Amino acid sequence: MKKIFTLSLLALGTLAQAQDKPITGFSAASSAQEVIREKQFDQSLSAERIGQNIKQLAAVPHHLGSPGGKAVADAILQKYKSYGLDAHIETYNVLFPTPKTRVLEMTGPTAYTAVLKEPALAEDATSGQAGQLPTYNAWSADGDVTGELVFVNYGLPDDYDQLQKMGVDVKGKIVIAKYGRSWRGIKPKVAYEHGAIGCIIYSDPKDDGYSQGDVYPKGAYKSEYGVQRGSVLDMVIYPGDPLTPGEGATKDAKRIDRLQAPTILKIPVLPISYHDAQPFLAALQGPVAPADWRGGLPITYHVGPGKTTVHLKLEFNWDMVPCYDVIAKIKGSKYPDEWVMRGNHHDAWVNGASDPISGQAAMLDEAKAMGDLLKTGWRPKRSIVYCSWDGEEPSLIGSTEYAEEHAKELQQKAVVYINSDSNGRGFLNAGGSHALEDMMTEIEKTVLDPQYKVSVFERKKAREVVAASSVKKKKELLADDIDHMEALGSGSDYTGFLQHLAIPTIDLGFGGEEGSGDYHSIYDSYDSYSRFKDHNFMYGPALASVAGRATLRIADADVLPFDFRSLYKTIDGYSTEVAELANQMRETTKMNNELIKANNYSLSYDPDKHLPQPETKSEVPAIDFSPLKTALQALKQSTDQLGINYEKAVAAGKDDDALNQKLYHAEQKLLMVDGLPKRPWFKHALYAPGFYTGYGVKTLPGIREAIEQRDWAEAKKQIDGAAGAITKLANYLGANPAP
Amino acid sequence: MKKIFTLSLLALGTLAQAQDKPITGFSAASSAQEVIREKQFDQSLSAERIGQNIKQLAAVPHHLGSPGGKAVADAILQKYKSYGLDAHIETYNVLFPTPKTRVLEMTGPTAYTAVLKEPALAEDATSGQAGQLPTYNAWSADGDVTGELVFVNYGLPDDYDQLQKMGVDVKGKIVIAKYGRSWRGIKPKVAYEHGAIGCIIYSDPKDDGYSQGDVYPKGAYKSEYGVQRGSVLDMVIYPGDPLTPGEGATKDAKRIDRLQAPTILKIPVLPISYHDAQPFLAALQGPVAPADWRGGLPITYHVGPGKTTVHLKLEFNWDMVPCYDVIAKIKGSKYPDEWVMRGNHHDAWVNGASDPISGQAAMLDEAKAMGDLLKTGWRPKRSIVYCSWDGEEPSLIGSTEYAEEHAKELQQKAVVYINSDSNGRGFLNAGGSHALEDMMTEIEKTVLDPQYKVSVFERKKAREVVAASSVKKKKELLADDIDHMEALGSGSDYTGFLQHLAIPTIDLGFGGEEGSGDYHSIYDSYDSYSRFKDHNFMYGPALASVAGRATLRIADADVLPFDFRSLYKTIDGYSTEVAELANQMRETTKMNNELIKANNYSLSYDPDKHLPQPETKSEVPAIDFSPLKTALQALKQSTDQLGINYEKAVAAGKDDDALNQKLYHAEQKLLMVDGLPKRPWFKHALYAPGFYTGYGVKTLPGIREAIEQRDWAEAKKQIDGAAGAITKLANYLGANPAP
Repeated sequence: MKKIFTLSLLALGTLAQAQDKPITGFSAASSAQEVIREKQFDQSLSAERIGQNIKQLAAVPHHLGSPGGKAVADAILQKYKSYGLDAHIETYNVLFPTPKTRVLEMTGPTAYTAVLKEPALAEDATSGQAGQLPTYNAWSADGDVTGELVFVNYGLPDDYDQLQKMGVDVKGKIVIAKYGRSWRGIKPKVAYEHGAIGCIIYSDPKDDGYSQGDVYPKGAYKSEYGVQRGSVLDMVIYPGDPLTPGEGATKDAKRIDRLQAPTILKIPVLPISYHDAQPFLAALQGPVAPADWRGGLPITYHVGPGKTTVHLKLEFNWDMVPCYDVIAKIKGSKYPDEWVMRGNHHDAWVNGASDPISGQAAMLDEAKAMGDLLKTGWRPKRSIVYCSWDGEEPSLIGSTEYAEEHAKELQQKAVVYINSDSNGRGFLNAGGSHALEDMMTEIEKTVLDPQYKVSVFERKKAREVVAASSVKKKKELLADDIDHMEALGSGSDYTGFLQHLAIPTIDLGFGGEEGSGDYHSIYDSYDSYSRFKDHNFMYGPALASVAGRATLRIADADVLPFDFRSLYKTIDGYSTEVAELANQMRETTKMNNELIKANNYSLSYDPDKHLPQPETKSEVPAIDFSPLKTALQALKQSTDQLGINYEKAVAAGKDDDALNQKLYHAEQKLLMVDGLPKRPWFKHALYAPGFYTGYGVKTLPGIREAIEQRDWAEAKKQIDGAAGAITKLANYLGANPAP
Repeated sequence: MKKIFTLSLLALGTLAQAQDKPITGFSAASSAQEVIREKQFDQSLSAERIGQNIKQLAAVPHHLGSPGGKAVADAILQKYKSYGLDAHIETYNVLFPTPKTRVLEMTGPTAYTAVLKEPALAEDATSGQAGQLPTYNAWSADGDVTGELVFVNYGLPDDYDQLQKMGVDVKGKIVIAKYGRSWRGIKPKVAYEHGAIGCIIYSDPKDDGYSQGDVYPKGAYKSEYGVQRGSVLDMVIYPGDPLTPGEGATKDAKRIDRLQAPTILKIPVLPISYHDAQPFLAALQGPVAPADWRGGLPITYHVGPGKTTVHLKLEFNWDMVPCYDVIAKIKGSKYPDEWVMRGNHHDAWVNGASDPISGQAAMLDEAKAMGDLLKTGWRPKRSIVYCSWDGEEPSLIGSTEYAEEHAKELQQKAVVYINSDSNGRGFLNAGGSHALEDMMTEIEKTVLDPQYKVSVFERKKAREVVAASSVKKKKELLADDIDHMEALGSGSDYTGFLQHLAIPTIDLGFGGEEGSGDYHSIYDSYDSYSRFKDHNFMYGPALASVAGRATLRIADADVLPFDFRSLYKTIDGYSTEVAELANQMRETTKMNNELIKANNYSLSYDPDKHLPQPETKSEVPAIDFSPLKTALQALKQSTDQLGINYEKAVAAGKDDDALNQKLYHAEQKLLMVDGLPKRPWFKHALYAPGFYTGYGVKTLPGIREAIEQRDWAEAKKQIDGAAGAITKLANYLGANPAP
C-alpha cells in the first residue's frame, strides 16, 4: 500500500487525470478492476531480478547456432515454465555463414595489414571469452578482390550522386564507407549497384567513438579496435532465411540454391575498426571529401581513387544451423483463439547484454508478473503468447520463419504483436500501428519514469518541447495531448508480423541517455551495460510496465482499444507529405535545369577543381493524387461513424465479439496483394523499410519511393494501389458487422 | 584592339547591356570618354608586375616598427614617385608591444611545455628568416598566472551561457578558446568579463587545419605547429594607438597612461598551435563538450575544470615605434579639395604575401595605371589620394591616427574612402556605404572574372543562386539585378573613415577559392601565395580594375554616383530586422519562461549529468519602433525627390557643384554626437563592429545591441537616436541646396 500511495503523490496531474475516466475499451466496472490488476502487475516486477537475468543470459557468447545460444534458449524455456506458462521451443533449420578467412591489406602505396580483432579488457569480465564470432558482416559474398580504394561517405545513393559531381566513379574499385545514416546492408548493395567489387565499412570516431565521448572502458563509446558486426543481407527484399522466402524454414521446407538467393550479397564486405581504417583513409588521394563527409580522424579525408590499392579476401562457412524460438502461452479464458503476442529476440552477436538481453530480461519479468497474476486466479480473456526469438541478428530469422510458417493462423488469431529489443535509460520510444496510439498514450500517462517519478508521457513531451526548434512548434507540441507513435521501418522482429501479415504492431523501448559504442561488439557486456546503459536496471521494470499494460489491456478489453480515426489522420498526413514531395521535386527540378542551362553551376565552381557540369533531369509531370484523396474521404467518414459505434459498444458494458473481430482484422485490408515493386514480400500499403534506408521507414512506401526514384508511371500505379487498399479499409470499417 | 574585341565577344549580355546607357553620374558624352579611359586603365595593369611586387614587398618580415617595415614603406614611396604621383610619408609615434617572455606549461596532471614556435620549411623560402615576430597576441597584459583550465569553445557570450547550463564557472581559471567565429580580441575580453585570469587561443584543425584540407606545405591549410598571431586590443571601444584615443598620435600628442588605456587587455593571452593545444585539451576532465563545440583533434573534448592546471607567463617590450603611412596624391583639375581616397595597409605580422601585400600590390598597379593615364594628358576632376597604411595589424593604427589627425579636413574633403586588404582567387566581396551600391553594381557588370571571362557580377550571382537554400530564394536572387553590398563591421582600415567620420566607404577584395591556413603565420609567404592563393596573380588586375573604376568614376563624375534610395531600402530592411528581433525575443522569452516554470527543461535532462535548472529571464516589453518608422517615411520621400533631381542634374550635362557637395557630405548626417553606448568613438548610426563580434557588423548597432543585451531603456534611447539621425539625413537631402 505504501508504495502505491507514494506513486500517487508524486505523479502530479497526469496519472490521476488519466484514471478519472475508464480505460478505453473497458466499462467503468471492468476498468476499475484493470487498474487494480495493473498495480498488482507492477508490484511483481523487480529491477534486481532483471539485472540478474541480464547477467545470466549475457554470460557467454550466444549467437545463432552456437552452444551458448542453445543454452540461453533452454534457460529461457525453463524460466517461462517456472513462472507457470505453457512453454516450448520451435526449431527452424536455417543458413548461417560464419567466417573462415578474413584478410584485408593495403598493397599500395604502403603496406598495411588490418588487425580485425577486438582485444580483451581487464575492465570487462566477458571480453576475453572463447566462442566469440570474429568481426564480420554476415551474408557477405565469398571473394578475393584487389582494387583501388574510394571513400564513399555513408555509401548511400546521394553520396554516389555527390561522387559523380566530383567526377569520381567506383566501377571495378573497392569502397570504404562509414557506418551510420542507414542500415548497414544498404552500403554494400548500393556499392554493388554502382559497380564496386568490394566494400569495407568502418566506424568513424565522429559517429560513435572519441568524438562523442570517452571510449570504452573509460566511457561508453567505441574504442580504437572496436568493430560493429552485423548482417548485410538485402533484407528490404525479404528478411529471414534467404533460402526459404515466404515460407517457414522447417526441416522439409523447399529451399532455393544459395547462389541464387537474391538477398545474399554479391561482393565481399567487411567491417573494421577506426584503428584499421585510418591507414587506408590517410593514404587516399584525389579530391578532398565534402565538408559533411569528413569524420573525426586526424587526417584530411580524401575521396580517392589513385595509388591506394586494397586486397580483400573473405571466405565463409555456409552452415545450416538450428534456430530456437521459445514460445510460451497463457490460454485465454473467453477467447483462446485471440492471441496477444509479445516478443523479443534472445540471440546476440556476442554476449549482447544490451542487444537483446536487456529487452529479453524485461519481457521475462512481464511473464513472471503474468504468472503471479495467474496465481491470484486471474485468467486473461484472450490468450497471451510470449515469443523469445532466435536468429534476429543475422536477418530476423526466428520471428520471420515463425510468421511465415504460421501466417494464416496469425492473420486469423493475432490481435496484436508487441515487440521490444534493446532497452536503456531515458525516454520511451513507441512505434507501430496508428490505430493503437490512443491506447499507448493512455498507458504512457500512467507509467512513471523511474528517475523523475513523472509519467513517461510527461517526460517525453518535455524533451520534445525543449528540443523543438521554434516557438510555433513548441506551442503545437504543448497543445497536443497524444504521443504520436513512430511509423515502423525495420530492424527488429516486428517486420514479419506488420509488413508481411499486417498484424497490428507495437514496438517499445526506452533509451536516449546511454552511450552506445559497444553495439554488436564484444564489449556489449554486463559490465558495460551496468555501468553505461542502465545502472540499477531501473528501466527494465519501466519497459515491463508499459509493455505489460499494453498486453493486459488488449487481452482483457471489452472492446479492443483500436481507434482508426487516428489512423485516418496519420495517413492523411502522409498523403500531404507525398504530394508535397512531388511538388517540391517539380519546383526544384525546374529551377536546377534552368540554372544548369544558364551555366550558373559551372560559374559557381572553382575551375581548378575541374568539376563536371551537372546534368539536367527530366521535369516532374503533374501527378494526380485525387484517387488517394477520395479514398481518404471515405476513410474519414467510416472511421468517424465507427468511433460513434465504438463508444456505444463500450457503454453497453459487455464484450462485442463481432466488433472486436472487425477491429483487429482491419489492418489486413491495407495489404496489397502484389506487394511493393521489386519486393512483393512487403505488402503493407502504409509502412515499409526504405529500399535505400533499410531501417528507416518509408510511409506510403510504394508512392513515396516511386517519386523519389523519379518513376512517374510507377507513382501513378502506386497511388491507385494505396487508394485501393485504403478504400477497402474504409468499406470494411463502414460496413455493419456480420450478424 | 584585339584584346578589347575578345572581351566583348566573351562578355555575354551584361557588359554590352551595361554600356548601352551612360554610366551613372556621367552625361552621354562624358560617359563615352570614361569608357575609353577605363579601357586604357585596364591595359596598364599587369598580373606579372603585381606578382613581382608581391615577391619584393613580402621578401622579409615587415611588421610595424621593424627595419623591414621601414624598407617596405620606402619601397612603396619610391614606386608612387616613379609612377608620377606626389608622395610622402606621414609618421606617427605609437605604442607597440612585442614579446619578451612567453611560457606556457601544463603543471598537472602531467607536465607539458608548449613549443610556441613555427618551424622553417624547405618548401618555403622565407620561412627561416631572422626578424620574425614570435607567435603572440599583441596587447595581451603582462602576467604570470597559474590555474585550472576550462575549454570555452569559441569564447563568446553564448558559450559562457552554455557553460552556465553545464554548471561550469571560469572565475579564477585559465580558459582555452578556439580561434574563429569572432574577432580574436573578443575571446580574452569576454573571458575577463567572466572572471578568468588568463586566456589561450588555439587553431583547431577542424577550422583551418587538416579537417579542411591538406596542410602546408602539401596543401594550403594550417600545419601542426602553425600559429595565428594577431591583435587582441579591445578595438570595438576604439581602434588605433591605445594611448591617443580620438587624436592623431603625433610626436607631441597628449597620451594617456598605458596602464589606464581601456583597450589594452587586463589578462595575459597567448595563441598556440594545435600541436600545443592537444595535450592540454586531452588532459581536461569534467563534462563532455557539447557536440558543436568539438573540434578535429583525435580526443574527447571535455570542458573541465579539474586537475588540469596551467602556468602562463607573458612579458612584453612596451616600445614606442614609428608608424609610416605612405600618402600619394594626384591633384584634381577642377575640385582639388574633393578627395577620392584609396587605401590598403603595408605592414604584416611576418612576410604577409597575402595579408596585406596582395592587396597592396594591386593598389600599386592602380597607381601605376593612373600615372600612365596622367602621361596621356588626363587629369581627374577631383584629387585622388593613395594611402599605404602602416600598423594595421596591431590595431588599424596608421589609418586611424591619420583619420583622427585629419578628421575635420577629411569630413570636408573626402568624397569616398575605398579600401582593400588581402586579395585572392574567386569572387568579389564588396561592402560599404549603401548609397554607392548601384555604382558598384554597374562596375561589377563591366569587369571580367579572369578565370571565366564573364562579369564578376555574373559569376558572383551564379554562386549566390546555386548556394541559396530554397527555390524561392533562388528566384528572388535571379530577379534582383543589384549586388547588395555587405554592411561593414571592422577588421581593416576603413573603420576610422566610416565609423568615426562617416566618410562614404567601399571595401573590396576577391576570394573564396584559396586555402587559408597561413593567416598571420610565417607561412603567409610568396611561395604559399603563388601556389595556393592566386597562381599567376590574375585576381590582382581584377581587383585593380574594380577599385580603379570606382576611383575613376567618383573622381570624374559630373554628378557623384550616390543613390540614397538604395540606402533608404537598406535601412528599412534593418529596421524590420530589429523589430523582428525584439518580437522573436519576446516570444522566445515568454515560451522559455513557461517551460522552465513547468519543469520541462529539468525533465528533459539526463539526471546523471546534474545540470542546473535554467533561469527565467525578464519578459520583453512592447518596444515602440514608431520614431524609426516615421524617420524612414521622411527619408523615403526626400530620397525619391532627390532621385528625380539627380536625373535632371545629369541630364543637364554639366557638373552640379552644390548637389555634389550635398551628396558626399550626406552620410555625415548619420553621425550620432554621443556615439554608441560604452564606445563614443563609434558614431555612425548604421554600421559598427559588434561589441561581442569584433569583425562582424551590427547594423543599427545602438538599437540592435541594446535589444540583444536586454537593455530595454537603452533600446528606446537608441531608437530615438537613430531616428534622429535618419530624420536629419532626410531633412538634409530634402532641402534645396544652399545657393
